[in-house]
Amino acid sequence: MAKLKVAVLGATGTVGQRFIQLLEGHPWFEVGALTGSERSAGRTYAESSRWVLDTPIPAAVRDMRIMPEDANLDTPLVFSALPSKTAGGIEARLAAAGHVVCSNASDHRMADDVPLLIPEVNPDHLDLIAIQRKNRGWSGAIVTNPNCTSTPPTMLLRPLIDAFGVNKLLLVSMQALSGAGYPGVPSYDSTENVVPYIGGEESKVELEPQKMLGTLRDGRVESATFTTSAHCNRVPVLEGHLICLSIGFTRRPHLDDLMAALSGFRALPQEMKLPSAPAQPIVLRDEPDRPQPRRDRMIGNGMATVIGRVRECPLLDYKLVALGHNTIRGAAGGSLLNAELMYAQGMLS
Amino acid sequence: MAKLKVAVLGATGTVGQRFIQLLEGHPWFEVGALTGSERSAGRTYAESSRWVLDTPIPAAVRDMRIMPEDANLDTPLVFSALPSKTAGGIEARLAAAGHVVCSNASDHRMADDVPLLIPEVNPDHLDLIAIQRKNRGWSGAIVTNPNCTSTPPTMLLRPLIDAFGVNKLLLVSMQALSGAGYPGVPSYDSTENVVPYIGGEESKVELEPQKMLGTLRDGRVESATFTTSAHCNRVPVLEGHLICLSIGFTRRPHLDDLMAALSGFRALPQEMKLPSAPAQPIVLRDEPDRPQPRRDRMIGNGMATVIGRVRECPLLDYKLVALGHNTIRGAAGGSLLNAELMYAQGMLS
Amino acid sequence: MAKLKVAVLGATGTVGQRFIQLLEGHPWFEVGALTGSERSAGRTYAESSRWVLDTPIPAAVRDMRIMPEDANLDTPLVFSALPSKTAGGIEARLAAAGHVVCSNASDHRMADDVPLLIPEVNPDHLDLIAIQRKNRGWSGAIVTNPNCTSTPPTMLLRPLIDAFGVNKLLLVSMQALSGAGYPGVPSYDSTENVVPYIGGEESKVELEPQKMLGTLRDGRVESATFTTSAHCNRVPVLEGHLICLSIGFTRRPHLDDLMAALSGFRALPQEMKLPSAPAQPIVLRDEPDRPQPRRDRMIGNGMATVIGRVRECPLLDYKLVALGHNTIRGAAGGSLLNAELMYAQGMLS
Amino acid sequence: MAKLKVAVLGATGTVGQRFIQLLEGHPWFEVGALTGSERSAGRTYAESSRWVLDTPIPAAVRDMRIMPEDANLDTPLVFSALPSKTAGGIEARLAAAGHVVCSNASDHRMADDVPLLIPEVNPDHLDLIAIQRKNRGWSGAIVTNPNCTSTPPTMLLRPLIDAFGVNKLLLVSMQALSGAGYPGVPSYDSTENVVPYIGGEESKVELEPQKMLGTLRDGRVESATFTTSAHCNRVPVLEGHLICLSIGFTRRPHLDDLMAALSGFRALPQEMKLPSAPAQPIVLRDEPDRPQPRRDRMIGNGMATVIGRVRECPLLDYKLVALGHNTIRGAAGGSLLNAELMYAQGMLS
Repeated sequence: MAKLKVAVLGATGTVGQRFIQLLEGHPWFEVGALTGSERSAGRTYAESSRWVLDTPIPAAVRDMRIMPEDANLDTPLVFSALPSKTAGGIEARLAAAGHVVCSNASDHRMADDVPLLIPEVNPDHLDLIAIQRKNRGWSGAIVTNPNCTSTPPTMLLRPLIDAFGVNKLLLVSMQALSGAGYPGVPSYDSTENVVPYIGGEESKVELEPQKMLGTLRDGRVESATFTTSAHCNRVPVLEGHLICLSIGFTRRPHLDDLMAALSGFRALPQEMKLPSAPAQPIVLRDEPDRPQPRRDRMIGNGMATVIGRVRECPLLDYKLVALGHNTIRGAAGGSLLNAELMYAQGMLS
Repeated sequence: MAKLKVAVLGATGTVGQRFIQLLEGHPWFEVGALTGSERSAGRTYAESSRWVLDTPIPAAVRDMRIMPEDANLDTPLVFSALPSKTAGGIEARLAAAGHVVCSNASDHRMADDVPLLIPEVNPDHLDLIAIQRKNRGWSGAIVTNPNCTSTPPTMLLRPLIDAFGVNKLLLVSMQALSGAGYPGVPSYDSTENVVPYIGGEESKVELEPQKMLGTLRDGRVESATFTTSAHCNRVPVLEGHLICLSIGFTRRPHLDDLMAALSGFRALPQEMKLPSAPAQPIVLRDEPDRPQPRRDRMIGNGMATVIGRVRECPLLDYKLVALGHNTIRGAAGGSLLNAELMYAQGMLS
Repeated sequence: MAKLKVAVLGATGTVGQRFIQLLEGHPWFEVGALTGSERSAGRTYAESSRWVLDTPIPAAVRDMRIMPEDANLDTPLVFSALPSKTAGGIEARLAAAGHVVCSNASDHRMADDVPLLIPEVNPDHLDLIAIQRKNRGWSGAIVTNPNCTSTPPTMLLRPLIDAFGVNKLLLVSMQALSGAGYPGVPSYDSTENVVPYIGGEESKVELEPQKMLGTLRDGRVESATFTTSAHCNRVPVLEGHLICLSIGFTRRPHLDDLMAALSGFRALPQEMKLPSAPAQPIVLRDEPDRPQPRRDRMIGNGMATVIGRVRECPLLDYKLVALGHNTIRGAAGGSLLNAELMYAQGMLS
Repeated sequence: MAKLKVAVLGATGTVGQRFIQLLEGHPWFEVGALTGSERSAGRTYAESSRWVLDTPIPAAVRDMRIMPEDANLDTPLVFSALPSKTAGGIEARLAAAGHVVCSNASDHRMADDVPLLIPEVNPDHLDLIAIQRKNRGWSGAIVTNPNCTSTPPTMLLRPLIDAFGVNKLLLVSMQALSGAGYPGVPSYDSTENVVPYIGGEESKVELEPQKMLGTLRDGRVESATFTTSAHCNRVPVLEGHLICLSIGFTRRPHLDDLMAALSGFRALPQEMKLPSAPAQPIVLRDEPDRPQPRRDRMIGNGMATVIGRVRECPLLDYKLVALGHNTIRGAAGGSLLNAELMYAQGMLS
């Protein structure tokens, strides 16, 4: 069967590069168009991208010409790696023109009629698309994935909320350099240092999980009601956001039940065997000093949430450490899994 | 006036090196004896220490001979940089023999009759020495300083407890490599990585502040009653422990009052102008992305607690970031300030 | 066909771990025995090894018991990841007992009757085995691979000597941390630093290439006669030794011919399609700023020598940059390819 | 005596910041004017500079207003931290207007009538100023300091050429991140990596030493005639360029004589006790693994060339390792010492 052609918007940036890397050899999709900034448009991908990943540029993309960001595309599915603010208008135009846009940008994430989606967490939120189309008169749609730092706690909380109820979440992130894009963080700032601030990050992490873990009722999402506090830090790690979490429960579980709920979690993408779905969404390491970003970020091909050190918290109920690959599951891979879910459900034909 | 001769136990390790560095040119004390392990004993300091600091070995110490750890010393004041477990017995023997031992080791810290001291926080706990001497029949004494990660939160909490009362503390540390001593953390573990575990650290940080912030009454310390939860991580930074804190108050202050209480804090060491006391025990940075370990750890010559990002916490009342130099204020410098306080109060003559 | 059982000596160290990683799924060989130090012997591999690689311990090895280093083995082929000095006697005992020992240790490398082998460079040196057996009365044999830093220049020089003659070589290495084993370099030394010294390294790099590039004549190797000078440095990189080289030729080639000789080089392992042989032993990158250790070390699965920046040298004739993966081709992978060559030539049955 | 007011051009960049840091408390000079790009002009220094150094902004400069780059200045002495290409025209205009411009920029370095100056190496080249003034009709002058990587080998070669003659120099640099300015090298490129390329660097290092070590005769500099080959690399170090050198001599010295010539070197700045001159221009470390950038770059307050590992080279005569602080002696500090020499010789009044 012919693969579905897809476009990648903002293809030369770091998230764009991850889309291209992850789409290489994909069983369902293949890259049919690339867009870039004015500076890149008209040049080949190899010429215009400062490729920074550690695998080579896929041969099929190397000589593809970059189209301008306002180009008309003929691919039904579009992945957006555009930067915030630029993304909003371009994505809306393409959705109006009939494209399904799976976007990693933050611009539309919190809109009432836009799904903010993790397929293991809230696949039913895709029902918002019908509302979105009605509201906006679009034939296409916009579906977003969350911020890279929102992903691991949201994934974890799904089985915990279902089994025990959660009312409090305190998290402190130690985020990788790649989260800032390229050129991103100057080496003169990151070397032998930690920067205890990432602009705009904490408010995203305090809002997005509530939306995803909220309940879709009468065409709108009622946010989950647990309280979140986030501290976000940048550490000298290339990929992989490590997060310390303390969690307060509605019904405090036994430790064994908590661990079982986490490591036993399976969801729709696993059932449907979506190509990018990890076998286990949540992988529990039992060594005392894991997960570690460098050693564990590629578990489940960068699509799993890896956890460890689950233990009692003197202040809330339990505490643990979680790790997610920020540019795979936390960005391009998250968008890709969203598209796979829609494709498997017949929403892309 | 002649300077007081002091000994440094465990002089060749990293904390020992810091003692020697900080004692160079000290106005009141001078190094009179050094002890080391069997391997080192009998050799000169320059021969036996693998000196790792970025300033040269002080000339006065370079050719001093290392004495064995069971040597009899003739210095009234002894600084102990011995490793835990080794420290306990040796320090007790010296205290029994009439020495005042200012120790960085953890062995005696939590003993009921041993002061665990930060001069800005609980100088009155030195009154425990009388009890200690009585209990143990010693003519000397042991005085300890806290774990490097306990120091910044304890310093911060002093003015906050006094002004507003504190009942909850959640902290996540990002700790420097030097905290593990030398050779310490293998570079193959630390490079481009974070290790979310430091053996024994979290329990220390959950207990020591309570003792220091406790009340001395009828010859014993009643621990402070706030609840603490600590997550401890190792990050690829050389010196300086960065700590994210969320704090719950008995009487929630206004943000301005909170900041004023922190940056206005002055205590006995500042009044007495002890040589190693920083002008301000707590320094508030107002840039959005500070403190940073590499850039701010030397504020107050490594003796200040540097804080920033004081803001509301959705879960507890306020959150902020704190930084302390782990091998200066958090180890050798902390011990040294303890000794200065005792000297200034006439307890060392 | 049943796979050949192999033993790994010193299986718990970093080179031992690489052997085990590279042998997972090998088409010809499978791990049949592991040895380790006294401390490890009797325990399972998972219990006794502090596994540091970023892929999991192979399931087939996880529960295998470690044998003591003086155990009798029943595997015809033995890989030695023993440390220098320990290796010599153990390897000789096993060779005497009929085992073929492919060793990464330096102890026997420079012995007249021991092949120091890179299959692309000097496969004919395997003829030394007959001499070795005669000299020593052994039924087995010892075959060694070179030091990790010797490998890339030796690989490069093979086609250059053959085509143009080489008489001078100056090289400066920037070597990865993993080259020092585990725990190896303390993070307190490597962080934000370069150490311009690696004990014993420069003399190895100044001698080993001459032996490998020498001519086997009348049962002995006449060393190649070019002059080498090496400066060796340790840089904060995990894997991959980067080497700057200036080369003087007997017959100075045109730049194009030089580049063609390098990138066109193919040898016996490529012809024989040995399982671990890279398609191209020498891969030429044409970007101005490559090769880079982190981005290029895995080219050819870590078995290629990657080069770039081939240009005129004002002092000698040409200069260039070369990169080799130090724990794959430069250690375990090099030994493994040696064994594959011997197996394919019927020397292991 | 009143201090001489000086201007700093390009004051907000990293080299500009170093000028301001080094001028704090200078006995002869004080900052009287600052210039910056259009974006900065009119704002205070604290507002417009992204201060990256680890000491605070000097109080005297904090609230000074930045002037535009084409402003008329009333300071006789001007330090230029302007980027290449921008620098040329601005510096020429100021020199024409009567200012003495001590420039760190490369634009005028190789002009026949412009001194490229290291006070220990070629103080007599200041005689070019008379020629420069005559040629160009200027009442002021431009004096330049070399590239940061040219400085250590040039310093070393001064006593060696004088004593033994030098005819060959091969050097491989491992350069610090700060050499690329700010934001400079992206952390995503530098982390756990080496980049074997720095645009334009090698040709500077192959030409500048020859000019500085050349002979001024009949109003022009005859370049020194030794042959140089340079390989330049970027390593993950903050400050301090480490350089491996192999040197060929006209008259091969004994090793002892070589070491004596290096460590015994003293020159005009030491005689004249210029404020920024290090007591010893060349400091020889005798530990086997020194100099190291992080530990040794501040020797002589960052103004010394630190060397070690002096030993025979199988290819040329001797090899050694040298270290220079790239943003102190290799940039702002080099310019400052040039100005001090001119001031002390009455050329700035």
